[in-house]
Amino acid sequence: MKINDITEKALIREIKKEFLTSKPGLMLGIGDDAAVIKTGKKSFILTKDLLLEKTHFYRDRHPPFFLGRKSLNVNLSDIAAMGGCPLYSLLGLGLPGKTSTEWVEEFMAGIKSACEEFDVVLAGGDICQAEVISISVTVIGEGKHIIKRSGAKPGDLIYVSGNLGDSAQGLQLVKKGIQLGEDKEKDIFLKAFFNPYPQVVLGKAISKNKTASSMIDVSDGLSVDLNHICEESGVGAEIFVDRIPFSKEMKLFQDDVMEICMHGGEDYNLLFTVPKHKKYRIDSLTKEYQLSEIGKITTGKNIYLVRKDGHKEKLDIKGYQHFSKSSEQ
Amino acid sequence: MKINDITEKALIREIKKEFLTSKPGLMLGIGDDAAVIKTGKKSFILTKDLLLEKTHFYRDRHPPFFLGRKSLNVNLSDIAAMGGCPLYSLLGLGLPGKTSTEWVEEFMAGIKSACEEFDVVLAGGDICQAEVISISVTVIGEGKHIIKRSGAKPGDLIYVSGNLGDSAQGLQLVKKGIQLGEDKEKDIFLKAFFNPYPQVVLGKAISKNKTASSMIDVSDGLSVDLNHICEESGVGAEIFVDRIPFSKEMKLFQDDVMEICMHGGEDYNLLFTVPKHKKYRIDSLTKEYQLSEIGKITTGKNIYLVRKDGHKEKLDIKGYQHFSKSSEQ
Repeated sequence: MKINDITEKALIREIKKEFLTSKPGLMLGIGDDAAVIKTGKKSFILTKDLLLEKTHFYRDRHPPFFLGRKSLNVNLSDIAAMGGCPLYSLLGLGLPGKTSTEWVEEFMAGIKSACEEFDVVLAGGDICQAEVISISVTVIGEGKHIIKRSGAKPGDLIYVSGNLGDSAQGLQLVKKGIQLGEDKEKDIFLKAFFNPYPQVVLGKAISKNKTASSMIDVSDGLSVDLNHICEESGVGAEIFVDRIPFSKEMKLFQDDVMEICMHGGEDYNLLFTVPKHKKYRIDSLTKEYQLSEIGKITTGKNIYLVRKDGHKEKLDIKGYQHFSKSSEQ
Repeated sequence: MKINDITEKALIREIKKEFLTSKPGLMLGIGDDAAVIKTGKKSFILTKDLLLEKTHFYRDRHPPFFLGRKSLNVNLSDIAAMGGCPLYSLLGLGLPGKTSTEWVEEFMAGIKSACEEFDVVLAGGDICQAEVISISVTVIGEGKHIIKRSGAKPGDLIYVSGNLGDSAQGLQLVKKGIQLGEDKEKDIFLKAFFNPYPQVVLGKAISKNKTASSMIDVSDGLSVDLNHICEESGVGAEIFVDRIPFSKEMKLFQDDVMEICMHGGEDYNLLFTVPKHKKYRIDSLTKEYQLSEIGKITTGKNIYLVRKDGHKEKLDIKGYQHFSKSSEQ
């Protein structure tokens, strides 16, 4: 059997089963956005993401400054999803010998810009030769009130930050060869894909006012990531279709806006659940952040889409899945 | 200019200059075997290494079980070089869709075997599709008495554990297409390359009895790694050629044994310096470990090879350097 024949989720499930060891201090292991180690009153949060040429980006299309920022920021998004504060990072960088030093300078300037923006120190790493550009970033953060995927309860309200589908729309434009600066409307989406913004400040605010019962960042798409919360929490959900937030410019490019909003990946917004009696705490955050109440957690296992007229249909879980043949990228 | 035209060291020097920020708690940043973060009485040690197909290994030659072990163990070696104790690991794994599930099972069994041997928990990571097999491991350890590269003083004695050059000899055999099991003598070297052993227990012992003034693991070769210690400490060194430890079987394959011992990489032995008045503490370790006193730290900047007849010559620094055209691999 080839890896192509199984999904990323199935593979992680197998690995998790094999590595069921634990250690004093390890609060959270394989299967959440990040691992959590308790040390004294604080917890350290550890996350790592690979970004590989031809899988996650194309060298001649992705501006290296933005790629540097994105390499750090997708990891910061995982720390944000735990309600943590990022502190340190490590960079593993594999480079083909023919890479220009200008590319490396721009890429590192991007890493530096994201480090400075979020007060993260690059503490070390590894550089080596490679067949294709291979980027691996580890971020170490800390947190007091860690928010897991597994705490959602029936009746909880479901919120998402920002707009959905922008990055997936950007990827579609990149694939068509559209470049930054050609068109103002298209730039909105290209930037969302090239240079996503991690919701670190919002994540900290949600953690601080102890609002959320569960949280995840929308990296694989709303359907896949909400399904992660539901599976880990042992619950189902209802999503109100007319409340899904999207950029108005999306209609210029898509006949079926909902399709890309439900299943498009890499928006790096925060998706979280809030017990009804804490709803007032979210209201205080809506002054500063775009937050949409898009549904509610239910008993059962399924996720349903509810239309304005009350029509209900089961949601297909089909966001970005590495290895599975239906992958978008 | 292309990356090929500069050395890994020059690139790291550039990056270090650009990222001269610090943060309370960061004891040691870019440029040592690992980064060190102080938290209360303990310090956390963070290290990450990339292992990439066609750069560090060939899929059809490196048994996947050994590759899994090596992926963890090269990081454990960095923790050992700081005198630390490894605790947790994160695995980033990029796999081409056509990789067989048997390969993945064997690889993960290797990771598990090394985790169990050194009491390390796999706490999380990231799996994705890739052009070539791309492995990135992060290890988090802790330590009380951190040993840096920068503490060597003139007069200190230089020690190395184990034998030198075994892994480089193994790589030469791998390149000739020799496989494990063909020949008992060759297997010694193939195993040293495929399945190196990290000196975690020795590193902890050296840290515990506060013996070493500086330490590094021999990953790039004795000449390059001793040069790291000398540069970071602002000292020179003399190496006594007849004291360099090597496997007696090496003579079956090499006319110039010293060449491969001085410059061959990936042995993952510990190279450390000891103030003369603490020499007695090392004597207590020599019962359990193969340790060779191979030279002494001097004033000045250069490293000299001293032959038995007293003849002295300056050492070329030419171990494994990614990007530079003189690389062995």
